[in-house]
Amino acid sequence: MIRHTVAFTLRHDPDSAAEHAFLADGERILTGIPGVLDFAASRQVSPKSDYRFQFAMTFADQAAYDAYNAHPDHVAFVEQRWAVEVAEFEELDFEPLGA
Amino acid sequence: MIRHTVAFTLRHDPDSAAEHAFLADGERILTGIPGVLDFAASRQVSPKSDYRFQFAMTFADQAAYDAYNAHPDHVAFVEQRWAVEVAEFEELDFEPLGA
Repeated sequence: MIRHTVAFTLRHDPDSAAEHAFLADGERILTGIPGVLDFAASRQVSPKSDYRFQFAMTFADQAAYDAYNAHPDHVAFVEQRWAVEVAEFEELDFEPLGA
Repeated sequence: MIRHTVAFTLRHDPDSAAEHAFLADGERILTGIPGVLDFAASRQVSPKSDYRFQFAMTFADQAAYDAYNAHPDHVAFVEQRWAVEVAEFEELDFEPLGA
């Protein structure tokens, strides 16, 4: 089980229509890809970080994660939306410590 | 509801007794502090990041989070263990997007 997370900041103005659209479209598109479990969209609220949002999702195993990365809907989202609208991001992936 | 997370790398050698002790003591000490919910210790596995571990916990609200930060067991852990044994870290806190 792998919890894939990405914290990010958008180029859009806070609370703008473009910000809302990115967050809604991201959730809709990514949750439609097979293997994506427990998707969560969050607001990053620590003043110790400049990131403003996070998408997180779980994959059953590395094969499911690889299939997600290669899925045409993911590739298109990254190329057409993420690369254009995201200013900064950081990926962190987690497995239970005992695993 | 706030999910508090900190990704970190220890000064200890990977898989050393000191590493195991820090992870076990951290979980034991932090889960003993009132208000700490759903504690999880994870291994950071993305090759895109150098962090090797993460502690995560949930607080019901900011008051519970503040009480945790000020709790003597937390203060002692930060001063006596974290400041000594942790090489690098990053805190990210999350609230559900709709909140």
